[in-house]
Amino acid sequence: MEKFRILEIKESVFEDNNVQADLLRAELKEQKTFLLNVMSSPGAGKTTTLKKTVNALKDQLNIGVMEADIDSDVDAATMAETGVRVIQLHTGGMCHLDADMTRQGLEGMGMENLDLVILENVGNLVCPAEFDTGAAKNAMILSVPEGDDKPLKYPLMFSICDVLLINKIDVLPYFNFDMEACIERVKKLSPNIKIIPICAQTGEGMEEWYEWLHTETKKWNEK
Amino acid sequence: MEKFRILEIKESVFEDNNVQADLLRAELKEQKTFLLNVMSSPGAGKTTTLKKTVNALKDQLNIGVMEADIDSDVDAATMAETGVRVIQLHTGGMCHLDADMTRQGLEGMGMENLDLVILENVGNLVCPAEFDTGAAKNAMILSVPEGDDKPLKYPLMFSICDVLLINKIDVLPYFNFDMEACIERVKKLSPNIKIIPICAQTGEGMEEWYEWLHTETKKWNEK
Repeated sequence: MEKFRILEIKESVFEDNNVQADLLRAELKEQKTFLLNVMSSPGAGKTTTLKKTVNALKDQLNIGVMEADIDSDVDAATMAETGVRVIQLHTGGMCHLDADMTRQGLEGMGMENLDLVILENVGNLVCPAEFDTGAAKNAMILSVPEGDDKPLKYPLMFSICDVLLINKIDVLPYFNFDMEACIERVKKLSPNIKIIPICAQTGEGMEEWYEWLHTETKKWNEK
Repeated sequence: MEKFRILEIKESVFEDNNVQADLLRAELKEQKTFLLNVMSSPGAGKTTTLKKTVNALKDQLNIGVMEADIDSDVDAATMAETGVRVIQLHTGGMCHLDADMTRQGLEGMGMENLDLVILENVGNLVCPAEFDTGAAKNAMILSVPEGDDKPLKYPLMFSICDVLLINKIDVLPYFNFDMEACIERVKKLSPNIKIIPICAQTGEGMEEWYEWLHTETKKWNEK
């Protein structure tokens, strides 16, 4: 038996994505579901980080995960091992999700009784930054091997995120990555962003991230 | 004095990009200029690899480099240190270059008397794969930290490339990267692709890459 469904996402028919995003956000607020939109480059460690996150929080929160990808279902297969509700979204070549596509995913997965839904967006630092998905918060993962200059080159992505996880800090000794310079560049774009250096593989820094996500979910769902 | 020009690229007015790409390719063939389109994720090592490549080949070939980015001019500043002709292309938020945008870049840089022009495309594994730039060959750089599953998730990118550099092999001991599995996945998408494992930082494998690029440039310009 399949542990997750694969949904082929259709292109949106709505012209004004911001309106659709605000509508979706209001509905999710009403039904007490916190939607987290997670973005990064390909290979920054989204799936590894999120699998650990789900395992850490699944006893306290009802969690659903939507895995968006151009193709393949490797991420949903990995995530399904946690036992939570998972759906694989195929974007059919599209490089991002907007609010309507996110809604299609939520409806395909089933939105009822979920405290937290995590959307793993397409691996891409450009296009996903331009489309509000309707999420309560945006998270970004930057990995050490990508370099500390990424905030200079993809400023929009950094400026729309509420939290930044700097992943793979275990390999800092092998890369020319200036953590202080990186943080300074990010703060210039987004002064209030929460920055948490982590290593998803070893678990370093992850407690602070779980704490942040748990607190934000509770705040959203209680108000 | 500035060592390179910054050009703000305009959105294309042409509907059929494939026609524009074929036209540009034919013109470049006529004037004996080999255009190489280089694509990768953000932070895979394009600029480091290309700077070494330019330094290795600049005594044998007249080279020009076009650095495409959403924002910033850090790559052009780095590349200008080689002394070859360099231009920074700002895409104004656009996530890829098409043939008309590439032509704007070539005209802005000056196309005369160049044996080899290298286009460093926007860091993105999705959108650049969908737009023929008019290049003679497409190259891709995949870095070890990104993971061996990338061909499964971004199949179009791998299937349109003529050569794949697998970069940062010096950190193979610190990552869970199965080189054999990766190569098998790539070959399934693109049976004739040339795959060269390299480390741009240490120079490992780079001779084979220089040789490939030099040979392809000569073949294109002599016929």
